[in-house]
Amino acid sequence: MSHVQGDAKKLLARVRRIGGQLGSVERAIAEGAECGAVLQQLAAVRGAVNGLIFQMMEGHLTAHVGGQDSGMPEEELAPVLAVLRSYMK
Amino acid sequence: MSHVQGDAKKLLARVRRIGGQLGSVERAIAEGAECGAVLQQLAAVRGAVNGLIFQMMEGHLTAHVGGQDSGMPEEELAPVLAVLRSYMK
Amino acid sequence: MSHVQGDAKKLLARVRRIGGQLGSVERAIAEGAECGAVLQQLAAVRGAVNGLIFQMMEGHLTAHVGGQDSGMPEEELAPVLAVLRSYMK
Amino acid sequence: MSHVQGDAKKLLARVRRIGGQLGSVERAIAEGAECGAVLQQLAAVRGAVNGLIFQMMEGHLTAHVGGQDSGMPEEELAPVLAVLRSYMK
Repeated sequence: MSHVQGDAKKLLARVRRIGGQLGSVERAIAEGAECGAVLQQLAAVRGAVNGLIFQMMEGHLTAHVGGQDSGMPEEELAPVLAVLRSYMK
Repeated sequence: MSHVQGDAKKLLARVRRIGGQLGSVERAIAEGAECGAVLQQLAAVRGAVNGLIFQMMEGHLTAHVGGQDSGMPEEELAPVLAVLRSYMK
Repeated sequence: MSHVQGDAKKLLARVRRIGGQLGSVERAIAEGAECGAVLQQLAAVRGAVNGLIFQMMEGHLTAHVGGQDSGMPEEELAPVLAVLRSYMK
Repeated sequence: MSHVQGDAKKLLARVRRIGGQLGSVERAIAEGAECGAVLQQLAAVRGAVNGLIFQMMEGHLTAHVGGQDSGMPEEELAPVLAVLRSYMK
């Protein structure tokens, strides 16, 4: 089973939460909300998408890379994940 | 009328397109798609969210800043927008 | 006096600190350091550059936009700076 | 020999180029250049740092992951590198 299938429930919950946030952005624009409020909501959507991408990248690398049969020992994966995290905050 | 209201139709179309992209991510995860394919779709969602945030920021700054009564002449807004664009590609 | 001239001392101190960080990256690579250690140092350089760009953008917008003669009241500048900060962490 | 040692010459050349760019930022600020010009130079430094980080990440993952003894076949590394590239433009 791929890590996507293994984590499907958690991943789907995150995607649906982002869908909900996006729905609020849509309502805010339709109701003529102030630009500042819409910008704040969009920044939150961006943060949530970044978080989901990090979870997927971490799962992908850990599943294929961190495993015993992989060429990359655990401690060499750590700095890769640390740099990813700094980009995906 | 605020620039959000003025651009509402275009902004709403973009938000709904992102909603559609997110729907495909949801289906891909639910159907057990390969992680690589889901990552690619999420990277596209991220790019679309960044593009929408840039459009909102540009509208906000141009509406309030580029106007005759503003303290910032047009050519001083250009480098700000150029830096924003480099972050929001 | 432009805000760059006004903040020159602080800005130059930050630029020189980044230069120092870059010098350590150069030594680490020349001495054959582990990739993980070099990556960590580069991520710190990136964070410092982002912080400097945010300081410049904030100074530029506040000097030209937040001022009394500007078309953008203070509270409309706040969400712009909040979004910038989220990108420049 | 680690990939950092193998690529040391190219990596050092990139680090020194960034150092040169940083030197120009320092001179521009010291000479009271316009904020817009300094911002543009800083955005170029940021792009160069991002490019160097991507080269390091690609080298690290390819050296440890793409190799025959690794748990991650080549085609599963490609989407990881594509997402990294989108963040490190």
